[in-house]
Amino acid sequence: MIYLDNAATTKPDEECLRSAEQYLTEYFYNPSALYAEGYTLHKEITKARSEILNTIANDKDFQLIFTSCGTEADNMAVFGGGRRGNVVTTYGEHSAIFSSVNELKERGVEVRFAKLNADGSVNVDSLISLIDEKTSLVTIIHVNNETGAINDVNGIARAVKAKNCRTLFHSDGVQAYGKIPFRMDKNIDMYSISAHKIGGLKGTGALIKRKSLAIRPLICGGGQENGLRSGTENVFGIKMFECAAVKKYSSLERNLAHVRQLNNYIRENIDRELFTVLSAPNASPYILSVVAHGVRGEIILHEADDKGLIIGTGSACSSNDKMRYSRVIFACGVDEKSADGVLRLSFSAETSVDEVKEAVKILNETVEHRRKIME
Amino acid sequence: MIYLDNAATTKPDEECLRSAEQYLTEYFYNPSALYAEGYTLHKEITKARSEILNTIANDKDFQLIFTSCGTEADNMAVFGGGRRGNVVTTYGEHSAIFSSVNELKERGVEVRFAKLNADGSVNVDSLISLIDEKTSLVTIIHVNNETGAINDVNGIARAVKAKNCRTLFHSDGVQAYGKIPFRMDKNIDMYSISAHKIGGLKGTGALIKRKSLAIRPLICGGGQENGLRSGTENVFGIKMFECAAVKKYSSLERNLAHVRQLNNYIRENIDRELFTVLSAPNASPYILSVVAHGVRGEIILHEADDKGLIIGTGSACSSNDKMRYSRVIFACGVDEKSADGVLRLSFSAETSVDEVKEAVKILNETVEHRRKIME
Repeated sequence: MIYLDNAATTKPDEECLRSAEQYLTEYFYNPSALYAEGYTLHKEITKARSEILNTIANDKDFQLIFTSCGTEADNMAVFGGGRRGNVVTTYGEHSAIFSSVNELKERGVEVRFAKLNADGSVNVDSLISLIDEKTSLVTIIHVNNETGAINDVNGIARAVKAKNCRTLFHSDGVQAYGKIPFRMDKNIDMYSISAHKIGGLKGTGALIKRKSLAIRPLICGGGQENGLRSGTENVFGIKMFECAAVKKYSSLERNLAHVRQLNNYIRENIDRELFTVLSAPNASPYILSVVAHGVRGEIILHEADDKGLIIGTGSACSSNDKMRYSRVIFACGVDEKSADGVLRLSFSAETSVDEVKEAVKILNETVEHRRKIME
Repeated sequence: MIYLDNAATTKPDEECLRSAEQYLTEYFYNPSALYAEGYTLHKEITKARSEILNTIANDKDFQLIFTSCGTEADNMAVFGGGRRGNVVTTYGEHSAIFSSVNELKERGVEVRFAKLNADGSVNVDSLISLIDEKTSLVTIIHVNNETGAINDVNGIARAVKAKNCRTLFHSDGVQAYGKIPFRMDKNIDMYSISAHKIGGLKGTGALIKRKSLAIRPLICGGGQENGLRSGTENVFGIKMFECAAVKKYSSLERNLAHVRQLNNYIRENIDRELFTVLSAPNASPYILSVVAHGVRGEIILHEADDKGLIIGTGSACSSNDKMRYSRVIFACGVDEKSADGVLRLSFSAETSVDEVKEAVKILNETVEHRRKIME
């Protein structure tokens, strides 16, 4: 199978699996235990925490809290940072943010939505105009998970603080982490990342936050993760995360160039009579959204699957929403007819040029064939 | 190493690891994806959900929501069920409950603590007397994680409902699940379980709840787990949980008899000049708490560790609390001097009689030697 749904999840890295396997077998102890075997694992977690943090932030100003996923990290940020006044975000956020701010609304917090540009990035003027003295939190996705649009979150955070220095700034970095060059500026208060989008495991994520920022935990208990996230630490998942993160950052630029080549190949070879490319040229090359003309995305997805090609339609995480059309794609200004034909192709460093060539062939043929049948 | 800290965590079951490994390698897809490979995993999760649920509850009245751990399940129950009026619990609860109800207190909910009996079980008369028309939630641990005391949670739930039929009843079943015979009665509204205490993985737990009970999610997002727990499903962890649960329930009585034999051996052979057994004879045989006379538990723990024996002092989950003494042991009426010497021995079906014989020898010798030095 050709797998082009890496924005939904990635294949766990085999080398990392081999190195972390020991935490499933011999080193299975509870890292909070007082005996040497437990303490050794505690130190391994400390090392992983530091290695992952240092890939994108300095450990003088920031700390990393392991969570069970990116969604949990987003929830920690929203419920930890957005407890009063108003919260500013966009319709282009991942469901983990969109559903959380809707829950905040139920609790009496006003939620304001900034406009999106046509490529899915946030309209910064619109965003800044919504911030006032009562804005407790601004949360903006770093790389849009449907279009790949990149928001300059360091710059946006700076502009947010200039408007209201007490407003907290959070970014969901799940589709950016391990993929595009970035280091956290001090104006960013919180940043969410996930392991399974970069060759790590489902069930592991983290929230990076400014050390001096006090937030209340979402999950209370035995006091793990400095009291900010209780529950026995998932050592195997954490060590897989460390390995995958270090590996991705050691070849970030090389991977980026490779994935850009894949992305460009599709942009150049997908039949423009049959498809419109939605993702802007300056989007993250890891994600390429296209619209098939006159054929429903779901039909193409299933036919491609039969032919050995796996692709996505919008975000897998919103496929439970029972919404026929993508909220994000609509917010970009796409009309209902086109929204029906949206496909998301997403890559990893392991995707080969040959796979992408074959994928383009399958996509062009599938849509052409479907359109002929419907004529 | 002889491992007698199975209440803190257990070694992942090797047979289950072999059978679930495929979900780390070839079947790595996102179970919420629309293509066949994703849907196949969705069905695997549905099967796991049903298999685990059916071990202790009927699927007509109850549903199971996968979480990232027992702590998260406890938090869902407390924050989902205890939103107003007062909440009744005990000082004998796991930190996942104790810290959560303290957070509820901060949010203006009154928290009432029922008395414990000397063995760590709840004093039911005291508990029932605290319930009034404003009690939204009662939460009582099923098997106490420090003493092994068993609470008759079906009976207690019945008595709670007789006093106030609108009060919700939750039990933390983490130390009971897969270990002692039990089926959920309809009076129990919510019940928490965990995978890594029964040969599954850290990072997987579940909340079982009455189907007709509506609670708000703790973690919002893409709508996984029927909208009650968002985040990409941890398929590998869930399949490991299924395998471990089915395995434990297929030999529950045999395991129980074996562990009872281990427990009895220690009760009969630990030197009563040097130790007092805290756990009542009718406690879960999986947990045996003892008090060493005149020697600190932590010293014994480290010396035993050096000699190849791993044991616990109270709950590993509260070792981050920086509390010198166990809240639970105190609540049982143990004085400060004795609390200092508490050790927790906890077993699994894989613990052998020979290991336990050697453990008793090490414990007796260690305490005897320490006392001689101190004379």
